[in-house]
Amino acid sequence: MKYSFKNDYSEGCHPAILEALSRYNFDQQTGYGEDQYSLKAKELIRQKIKNDHADIYFVSGGTQANLLVISSVLRPYQSAVSASTGHILNNETGAIEATGHKVLSIETEDGKLRPEDIVPVLENHGNIPHQVMPKLIYISNSTELGTIYTLEELEKLSDFCRKNQLYLFMDGARLGHALTAEMNDLTLEKVAELTDIFYLGGTKNGALIGEAIIINNKDLQQDFGFNIKQKGALLAKGRLLGIQFLELMKNDLYFKLADHANQQAMKIKNALQERGVAFLSDTYTNQIFPVLDRHTIRVLSEKFEFYVWKKVDEDFSAIRLITSWNTPDEAVDDFIQSAGKVIR
Amino acid sequence: MKYSFKNDYSEGCHPAILEALSRYNFDQQTGYGEDQYSLKAKELIRQKIKNDHADIYFVSGGTQANLLVISSVLRPYQSAVSASTGHILNNETGAIEATGHKVLSIETEDGKLRPEDIVPVLENHGNIPHQVMPKLIYISNSTELGTIYTLEELEKLSDFCRKNQLYLFMDGARLGHALTAEMNDLTLEKVAELTDIFYLGGTKNGALIGEAIIINNKDLQQDFGFNIKQKGALLAKGRLLGIQFLELMKNDLYFKLADHANQQAMKIKNALQERGVAFLSDTYTNQIFPVLDRHTIRVLSEKFEFYVWKKVDEDFSAIRLITSWNTPDEAVDDFIQSAGKVIR
Amino acid sequence: MKYSFKNDYSEGCHPAILEALSRYNFDQQTGYGEDQYSLKAKELIRQKIKNDHADIYFVSGGTQANLLVISSVLRPYQSAVSASTGHILNNETGAIEATGHKVLSIETEDGKLRPEDIVPVLENHGNIPHQVMPKLIYISNSTELGTIYTLEELEKLSDFCRKNQLYLFMDGARLGHALTAEMNDLTLEKVAELTDIFYLGGTKNGALIGEAIIINNKDLQQDFGFNIKQKGALLAKGRLLGIQFLELMKNDLYFKLADHANQQAMKIKNALQERGVAFLSDTYTNQIFPVLDRHTIRVLSEKFEFYVWKKVDEDFSAIRLITSWNTPDEAVDDFIQSAGKVIR
Amino acid sequence: MKYSFKNDYSEGCHPAILEALSRYNFDQQTGYGEDQYSLKAKELIRQKIKNDHADIYFVSGGTQANLLVISSVLRPYQSAVSASTGHILNNETGAIEATGHKVLSIETEDGKLRPEDIVPVLENHGNIPHQVMPKLIYISNSTELGTIYTLEELEKLSDFCRKNQLYLFMDGARLGHALTAEMNDLTLEKVAELTDIFYLGGTKNGALIGEAIIINNKDLQQDFGFNIKQKGALLAKGRLLGIQFLELMKNDLYFKLADHANQQAMKIKNALQERGVAFLSDTYTNQIFPVLDRHTIRVLSEKFEFYVWKKVDEDFSAIRLITSWNTPDEAVDDFIQSAGKVIR
Repeated sequence: MKYSFKNDYSEGCHPAILEALSRYNFDQQTGYGEDQYSLKAKELIRQKIKNDHADIYFVSGGTQANLLVISSVLRPYQSAVSASTGHILNNETGAIEATGHKVLSIETEDGKLRPEDIVPVLENHGNIPHQVMPKLIYISNSTELGTIYTLEELEKLSDFCRKNQLYLFMDGARLGHALTAEMNDLTLEKVAELTDIFYLGGTKNGALIGEAIIINNKDLQQDFGFNIKQKGALLAKGRLLGIQFLELMKNDLYFKLADHANQQAMKIKNALQERGVAFLSDTYTNQIFPVLDRHTIRVLSEKFEFYVWKKVDEDFSAIRLITSWNTPDEAVDDFIQSAGKVIR
Repeated sequence: MKYSFKNDYSEGCHPAILEALSRYNFDQQTGYGEDQYSLKAKELIRQKIKNDHADIYFVSGGTQANLLVISSVLRPYQSAVSASTGHILNNETGAIEATGHKVLSIETEDGKLRPEDIVPVLENHGNIPHQVMPKLIYISNSTELGTIYTLEELEKLSDFCRKNQLYLFMDGARLGHALTAEMNDLTLEKVAELTDIFYLGGTKNGALIGEAIIINNKDLQQDFGFNIKQKGALLAKGRLLGIQFLELMKNDLYFKLADHANQQAMKIKNALQERGVAFLSDTYTNQIFPVLDRHTIRVLSEKFEFYVWKKVDEDFSAIRLITSWNTPDEAVDDFIQSAGKVIR
Repeated sequence: MKYSFKNDYSEGCHPAILEALSRYNFDQQTGYGEDQYSLKAKELIRQKIKNDHADIYFVSGGTQANLLVISSVLRPYQSAVSASTGHILNNETGAIEATGHKVLSIETEDGKLRPEDIVPVLENHGNIPHQVMPKLIYISNSTELGTIYTLEELEKLSDFCRKNQLYLFMDGARLGHALTAEMNDLTLEKVAELTDIFYLGGTKNGALIGEAIIINNKDLQQDFGFNIKQKGALLAKGRLLGIQFLELMKNDLYFKLADHANQQAMKIKNALQERGVAFLSDTYTNQIFPVLDRHTIRVLSEKFEFYVWKKVDEDFSAIRLITSWNTPDEAVDDFIQSAGKVIR
Repeated sequence: MKYSFKNDYSEGCHPAILEALSRYNFDQQTGYGEDQYSLKAKELIRQKIKNDHADIYFVSGGTQANLLVISSVLRPYQSAVSASTGHILNNETGAIEATGHKVLSIETEDGKLRPEDIVPVLENHGNIPHQVMPKLIYISNSTELGTIYTLEELEKLSDFCRKNQLYLFMDGARLGHALTAEMNDLTLEKVAELTDIFYLGGTKNGALIGEAIIINNKDLQQDFGFNIKQKGALLAKGRLLGIQFLELMKNDLYFKLADHANQQAMKIKNALQERGVAFLSDTYTNQIFPVLDRHTIRVLSEKFEFYVWKKVDEDFSAIRLITSWNTPDEAVDDFIQSAGKVIR
């Protein structure tokens, strides 16, 4: 059996979650997210972001969270704006458009948006009412390329959005990884303060399913629950989501798991860099993109699973390696050794 | 703590499911429903319905299943038709309309649709193109009132639909309870044969989440997976659904759990009937609607939770009691005794 | 050639409109509703309703106006409420649902809604967030049955809506006929004051196409123009709509045309009543529903076109006669004479 | 009063249309497109394209035609593909997305799509079911840049689409201008043969409103009329559209009008070229884009209205001049003279 570095959702969940599911299994609870575990988990999150007035909803996955947020926030003629690498643009089968909204794309090198990227989009959408109104800025942290936002970058972007009456929405499917990355200077509290709405991803960080949507902007809180039910995202047994986030939030398990994933990735990155390997982008989270020659890729793929991400030239391609909360040292060491033997 | 008869999703899941989740937890699997457990569970279902060519998809809940099926099957100008008690009409926040489709309502006594109920709807929608085209017949089994379809009723309805080029879709959120009811003469195989598409509900029968959508009509199979992703219903860790259905399908656990729920309801029903209590409808599944006087309701509600469903006259109301796969004998006995003491 | 009483859109338009179209034909004008004629026509309407701040948009037809207004005003989880006879429920191919919104139906005798009809709908939609939120009350004046609202009725309804935070929207496809009916005590000014949004129908009152949407509620004015473009309702040559409304508004041509249609209907009504004919409903606008025996209907249908509306018993049916701005005295007299000869 | 070269919809309509509207004005006709004029106009179009089995529908405008066609043809998870200059991408307020469909954009120089442009889009959308399925190729002829398709180009594209099970849809808002352009070798018959669906634009070629949607592919014909009603595009007085197309189709008035517009543009183009003026693109239809210096633009804009289209360098910009069926020789001559005096 090959070890897979293809993604961070190949295994089940952290054992503490399974234990908690068993522990509480026979307690009768109110359905649809009103269970005690969900209420407590939300309370813990509110404490962490130091905002008593945040509205919090647990849903199953990232695409669901994205379509719920965007369709709830926008009026029919308003559009989202995303980096061209954005998950909503490429990997969600038109989920946003299916709710009626255009997503405007901005080409960027590193998967991040800056005010200067957005200015031309606003300028090119002034032919009222013949064009959509750009209204929500969608960013991912960490991004689809593994990069992260600095505090300064997020502050500038947040400031820009407020001045231009744009909503700032952060896709946090891998927010844990971003906030525990080596170069990170953001905090969960700052993310909550600087965005209008964001989510904290569980699925890619040790949960079976689950993303916690956190709405800071009071204008966007009203009636959000209706949309969750209408889009088929309200679980009868909301306890399944509540228990998981309760465990993840306790003792910062959430951040410990993300940190583990990052460290395993960094071990491989450092080892490869020492061997002179170049990387497609300079990342500090659990996604790395080493550029390897064809022979090396072929040999490594005999023992490991991973995606060949992008052809660089005739001989070299970048591969994508993703580590997870559960990636064992053995797999990491094995990969490093195997690579060491073959890299020319 | 009061014992709740409010619904069949108050507890977690059958322990066998938790055990299986733990057993397989660290096995790496392909994501998005391509895991080994999902594939095996689908194989088991195909065997049970004796149809190798059925397409099967696992999704999280009933509203999600309903909106996925209906929006996938219908063209923009086509509508669904439902009994006025239908879940899609009353309890899904307009989820079907949110995908663009009208739901036509038919008043019925017992929550079931018969060809003679549908004929006038077809006759009243002949003003082409000024009216929607009725195209999909939505039925629930068991219904929202706890009633069930007989084989003969389903055969007639199926025959009518085929003659009129209508799709027949069965909401099986409580199909287990229907198929194990005392008066039932339908089988899962017959359901699959007589409908174009239906689903087998897990959430209300011992799973944490999960409904198995089964597409028998080949015309409706094409590209269904795209809709699941687009509507945010495709879980990265599809294993969560696969493992649950694998356990439920093994050794007919699914039907044993439903049978237990039904029997517990029937014990209460029989005991109350012996005391002369009338019922709102004559049901044989896990939903019963005894008609009790105000005093009895007040006394019982001190020890038990349940919904007061419908006022019958000044003194009497029907309450709704729902039992589940996990309802213990003690709760049933306690309810019967408590009722016995107070019923006048 | 038989004379048709089937509807009020069988002919072209009032000659004054054709003359104006010719008169202004070669003047170059700004497109998309910013032409001089549209601006002047809007000014005239604002004067008539005595509201300088009303936003006014001209669109092509009634279904278009209805779907534009409702989809613009409602949030995704909110629904419209209509009398069961409402045009949006029966004759628009699910146009409202196609924009994502459910329409709740209320059975009424005369096609009108009163607060007491709406109260139960509000009471039955309290299961948040499992049900849509009723938010917009849709009424027609005159209704699809030819009946009209009195000032007192509209005041009560308006008051009820404001107290319950509901929007009141009047479909005025035949508002001219309502406001010029014999028993009417409403004015255009009062309609504007008592509704949040309404439209003034041109298509059924002497225009080629055209409905004037008038938005009084400032909250609903914002960005309405985007929706018009997005739904394909913004005409490049907006002058076509502007010129028509300019002519209709000048010298109250609009009301004179509607009055003519009403008077022609009343002549037939009175003549038939004198012959002892009963009517399905007591109407004073350009739609009348005399109840005639089969023989009479057969004989009349040899010379005239009309719809047989509703079977009353084995021998008698109600027919629908609609008169228009252009119905000549000869046709009316001929019908009365022909009927007189045959009515038993 | 300045003469406007801003667009081809500044005036009313060709006088023959007004005459016909007057001539037929008092004839009673069936509504909703079943009038005699519409039926005859469709017959004339079928003769011109030599296809007795084409389905034809008249609608009001281009955005309406585009959203109707695309939302009718595509399944929810399928997308349209357009050149980046496409009207549906930039100038329709997200009308296509509002019906639930993504539009994929392809960068092109001249506003035209070729098979080799589309291949990479197909290749990049193979991650089933995580991406939309490209299914409909949207092209404009003439394009938004004034360029046109040759017979060979359209044949290759059509062939490519059929081989790849893609629908080919031509936006013909300015199809008349394309087919009468100097360099054109396409015919209306060939357009009908090589596309699945296209429309013939009236609004920009002498009608008040009106586009004729022509469906050649039988699979796409079914039930199209329902969509027209549902989207609010079905006019009660369909005669307004029918009469216009009847006049335009008679004696090839449609093509004569387009030819006039083209010739007026070519006169200006030739005169400016003789003065050494460069053009942004080499066009032969009624849109031209001369590159002029700031001084020239300022002087010309004192007498004429036009859009400054694109800055070329510090001193020079391209302006857009559009001529129409009604552009008089005087305006053309005056422009040429005025330009001649000032061009350096």
